[in-house]
Amino acid sequence: MNNTPHPPRLPRLIEVRKNVLKRNDLLARKLRDRFRAASVFVASLVSSPGAGKTAFLEKTLTALRAQCRVAALVGDLATDNDAARLARAEVPVRQITTGTVCHLEAEMVERALDGWNLDELDCLFIENVGNLVCPSSYDLGEEMRLVLMSVTEGEDKPLKYPTIFNTADVAIITKIDLAAAVEFDLKSARRNIQSVRPGMRVFELSAKTGEGMDEWLRLLQSRL
Amino acid sequence: MNNTPHPPRLPRLIEVRKNVLKRNDLLARKLRDRFRAASVFVASLVSSPGAGKTAFLEKTLTALRAQCRVAALVGDLATDNDAARLARAEVPVRQITTGTVCHLEAEMVERALDGWNLDELDCLFIENVGNLVCPSSYDLGEEMRLVLMSVTEGEDKPLKYPTIFNTADVAIITKIDLAAAVEFDLKSARRNIQSVRPGMRVFELSAKTGEGMDEWLRLLQSRL
Repeated sequence: MNNTPHPPRLPRLIEVRKNVLKRNDLLARKLRDRFRAASVFVASLVSSPGAGKTAFLEKTLTALRAQCRVAALVGDLATDNDAARLARAEVPVRQITTGTVCHLEAEMVERALDGWNLDELDCLFIENVGNLVCPSSYDLGEEMRLVLMSVTEGEDKPLKYPTIFNTADVAIITKIDLAAAVEFDLKSARRNIQSVRPGMRVFELSAKTGEGMDEWLRLLQSRL
Repeated sequence: MNNTPHPPRLPRLIEVRKNVLKRNDLLARKLRDRFRAASVFVASLVSSPGAGKTAFLEKTLTALRAQCRVAALVGDLATDNDAARLARAEVPVRQITTGTVCHLEAEMVERALDGWNLDELDCLFIENVGNLVCPSSYDLGEEMRLVLMSVTEGEDKPLKYPTIFNTADVAIITKIDLAAAVEFDLKSARRNIQSVRPGMRVFELSAKTGEGMDEWLRLLQSRL
């Protein structure tokens, strides 16, 4: 160990980071192969804290459970509140508690799946820790990554957090029932999303009122 | 470099992380000494993306500028939108663009101060990158750390992100004008904050309507 006040920091950090990401990519690839072999469609959700991932997921799980076998993994630093909320959808749910780790990794997903028979599942959702930065670097073996942003966060989030929008496949604008109250400019939000990720599919919805959920469920069903 | 699929990852990560944090702590201590020597009161702001840090800061800077010499540094991964917004308060503002780094570090603050004479300042605000996890580990040399959470994020955020609440001195509940619309339970939010950080001072306010700003400004003025 180098104990001088200014150790040459960046080269070592980059090397370790490369190793961590490489290892995660290898594990994610294995997971993806397992999911495909078992014909499980896997979607992950990323967003800021409080953007409405759990409410959106609860509505989605409730709508899907009559048609297919669905389950969810949900990540948080602390508490199993989200697993308890999602259990109301009456599908299998497991909480991943990360402690101080600011994102999910493929290894955590693999461990959380322990004991579940993937052949008995059609669809799995993975809710990441609330964080618009760090989860972008970690492949979880998912088929589709959803990035959620709520109207209360403002229209500029895609410009300020471009990497996470770039690594996602679908954008969901949530809490659309509050759009007028916060003077949300939908046109500008859509323009910002497209400038970061041209051609990205965007849904506007409210898990509270149900507005827009049908269109999202139609896309999901076309992929199942 | 170890190219096996499973390099022994944790020990090296912990070692590098320790070095990074140690170096940051040393730099933050130097910064704190500089701020004290120049009698500059420094407050930093952390929150989720879109919790309203910039709106709150703009109102605070505008209220303060008649009474004292105030300035701000503002961090984001990309864009200088926030510096442009804060410039409307007509005080010196500098943007720190972190690229892919999910938090500010003492070194970034030090670099951003280059060319500013601290003896000509009474108060400095540092707005961190929107992230409720990673900024908690990085001391920036500030005297007071504010953690903001908006009513639209839900009451459970202190329980889910305990470390950031634990490292902060004051909690600000923002967008209080939307509390009824999102059925925010203030009592439960306050209870959650106190369970994570007993005795923490909590303000409820709206930068939009101005509600609650006076009480916050009174605390700030008592510290200047």
